[in-house]
Amino acid sequence: MLKLDKDSVKIPEGFIFEGFYSGIKKDGMDTALIVSSIPAAAAGMFTTNRVHAACVSRNKKILDKDQKVRGVIVNSGNANACTGHEGAENNILLAEYAAELIGSQTEEILTASTGVIGVGLPINKIKDSLNDLNFPIKNTQDGFLHSCKAILTTDTYEKKASVSLSIDGKKCTITGMAKGSGMIHPNMATMLSFITTDIAISSEMLSKALRETVEDTFNMISVDGDTSTNDMVLIFANGLAENSEIKTTTPEYNLFIKALRMVAVYLAKSIAADGEGATKLLEAEVTGAKSKIDAQKIAKSVISSNLVKTAFFGMDPNWGRILAAIGYSGADFDPEGVSIYFQGAPGYSCLMNKGKPHDYDIDSVRGILKEKNIIITIALSDGDASATAWGCDLSYDYVKINAEYTT
Amino acid sequence: MLKLDKDSVKIPEGFIFEGFYSGIKKDGMDTALIVSSIPAAAAGMFTTNRVHAACVSRNKKILDKDQKVRGVIVNSGNANACTGHEGAENNILLAEYAAELIGSQTEEILTASTGVIGVGLPINKIKDSLNDLNFPIKNTQDGFLHSCKAILTTDTYEKKASVSLSIDGKKCTITGMAKGSGMIHPNMATMLSFITTDIAISSEMLSKALRETVEDTFNMISVDGDTSTNDMVLIFANGLAENSEIKTTTPEYNLFIKALRMVAVYLAKSIAADGEGATKLLEAEVTGAKSKIDAQKIAKSVISSNLVKTAFFGMDPNWGRILAAIGYSGADFDPEGVSIYFQGAPGYSCLMNKGKPHDYDIDSVRGILKEKNIIITIALSDGDASATAWGCDLSYDYVKINAEYTT
Repeated sequence: MLKLDKDSVKIPEGFIFEGFYSGIKKDGMDTALIVSSIPAAAAGMFTTNRVHAACVSRNKKILDKDQKVRGVIVNSGNANACTGHEGAENNILLAEYAAELIGSQTEEILTASTGVIGVGLPINKIKDSLNDLNFPIKNTQDGFLHSCKAILTTDTYEKKASVSLSIDGKKCTITGMAKGSGMIHPNMATMLSFITTDIAISSEMLSKALRETVEDTFNMISVDGDTSTNDMVLIFANGLAENSEIKTTTPEYNLFIKALRMVAVYLAKSIAADGEGATKLLEAEVTGAKSKIDAQKIAKSVISSNLVKTAFFGMDPNWGRILAAIGYSGADFDPEGVSIYFQGAPGYSCLMNKGKPHDYDIDSVRGILKEKNIIITIALSDGDASATAWGCDLSYDYVKINAEYTT
Repeated sequence: MLKLDKDSVKIPEGFIFEGFYSGIKKDGMDTALIVSSIPAAAAGMFTTNRVHAACVSRNKKILDKDQKVRGVIVNSGNANACTGHEGAENNILLAEYAAELIGSQTEEILTASTGVIGVGLPINKIKDSLNDLNFPIKNTQDGFLHSCKAILTTDTYEKKASVSLSIDGKKCTITGMAKGSGMIHPNMATMLSFITTDIAISSEMLSKALRETVEDTFNMISVDGDTSTNDMVLIFANGLAENSEIKTTTPEYNLFIKALRMVAVYLAKSIAADGEGATKLLEAEVTGAKSKIDAQKIAKSVISSNLVKTAFFGMDPNWGRILAAIGYSGADFDPEGVSIYFQGAPGYSCLMNKGKPHDYDIDSVRGILKEKNIIITIALSDGDASATAWGCDLSYDYVKINAEYTT
């Protein structure tokens, strides 16, 4: 049985983490290093926003070459986006200074930035702080926590998890951290996630595993529908667990992807639950859809609807808004076959049954709506496909956080 | 020169309007009749939501037959959506009772409903109020105002306008009314607009004119991104102006569509400005796009972004959020060619110039942001196409209106 650790997170063999203060933010740690002691297979998924930062283009280029890398340097407080040629040069310098510190090639270091856009990256401050750093640090647990903190912007807590699994009798660990899409403070923030593992896996299979996992997890969350210029998920696998390398879709691969998914689901849900101003985590669970794409469209449409989000903030069982969001999702479905429930479909929470309003138990449903985590179950009668998406409610605090900041 | 009348609205020849109270809402007028004294050509555009009310399906079916009609009966306070077979029957009865009153065939009367969904339409109350009505009423101006009021739900004011024009030396008038997409009060509301004209035009050309106009006006507004189950725009042309019938794309047709567009733009902007909780009307004007579709995608993406909307509520010149919304719009454009201005592009308001942040005059820009109507000009360098979209800011009151209602 796979078990998710979120408090005492395990660290994969051969990875070193550190988070520290470079003076980009006014206070708090703002720079992180995630480094493998030996070159590691790596894969990434990136923002689809046509306007994107230099770190996104550079990482893509490096990963496209299919070469092994040593790690990533991440800064928060400055997205280094819309900063022109100087920004692109600073992005390379960021990698260069980290490479000097750990003794690798510049090309072996990926980069990630998040924070204010259109402002030059204070690259010399980062250079100085790297020069002052004792690296490799002794206590990897402390270093891991520091790095989880250093990548945050408006998040209210660190997001981290690990799962250990046994492959060929070897203990492998997958460990992830993330920062939230509590977008745009001070100007625009970003969803970032970095996952490390000591499993031995080919870079082709690692890419495949990441793509499949992200589609069902990080790509199924929405805080406010705004896609950032810097979003990215990176995964590094250094092979130090010494299992025989996974090269095809074996049972070992399936076990790996199951464990990876546990980490990613947990991080994705944490991001949604910690969305700006959020008081509730909303989970839209669609079953009986004609295709997975239809199920995904419906799940995302429901958790992205401002009307659904405000209704849950107001603890209102407003199935009409949910139905409308299903209707305009662009998915193919039979409106006469839609049933809507809360919290995993106990009968008393049936708000709509096969396209018709249903007399639900108002007291039970009001009780459900006071909970912090709400599952909206949408049962269709069009096929066997399913999907889940996560989001949060829309509160006064969302407006406050995003309206009261002044550029 | 065409002139828009919004206060002393002109009424086209041969149209009679009335608004009255049927007891669907707790108080205030909730039922309207718009009737032509002779059969009129008609056209309509409807919600694309897969879940839609009986009135939408029935109107489509009637208009597809290309037959002339006498008018429309509209009720507010109840959307008669998700009400099953009984709802469909009530929808036909609505038309039947109106037809009896005015002495027409049931098939000659279209219907529209807006308000709470999933609740049976109190059809007998409407029947009784129609029986008590003195129809045709004497004062068409009063009747017109009543009908403008009777179609409203959460709107804070009536939306109405007319334009008169001369075709073949005959005076023609186009008069429109609308209700806002201040969605979902009490459960879900709707954008409705009804336009009447005495111009003589074939139903084919009327359809074409409506489609072309709606694409650039009502389809380019967004209050909260939620598409209702009952949205519709109907136009009626009874020919009583006695111009020679417009049957092809003549200069007369072009003049007609120009005047129709003036009415539709005014109504669409009024809906956006009166969005729930809105304090500002936002107009995104895109120029230099590769294609009209690209321009439309960008304009709609910008005015639909929660982050852009909250920034304007907070009077923050946050060009980063605008740029991000341009970037994820799905449009094809060169990020290095994007310039962003406010209020029609005076130089001092240039926030971004050809993809780079620009030093704007902070005092002038802060002054602009205090205004009630804000134009966001987005100049691209990809081609000649342009588009405009309208929306509103996202305020505490939007959350309040939509969270504090309890089903």
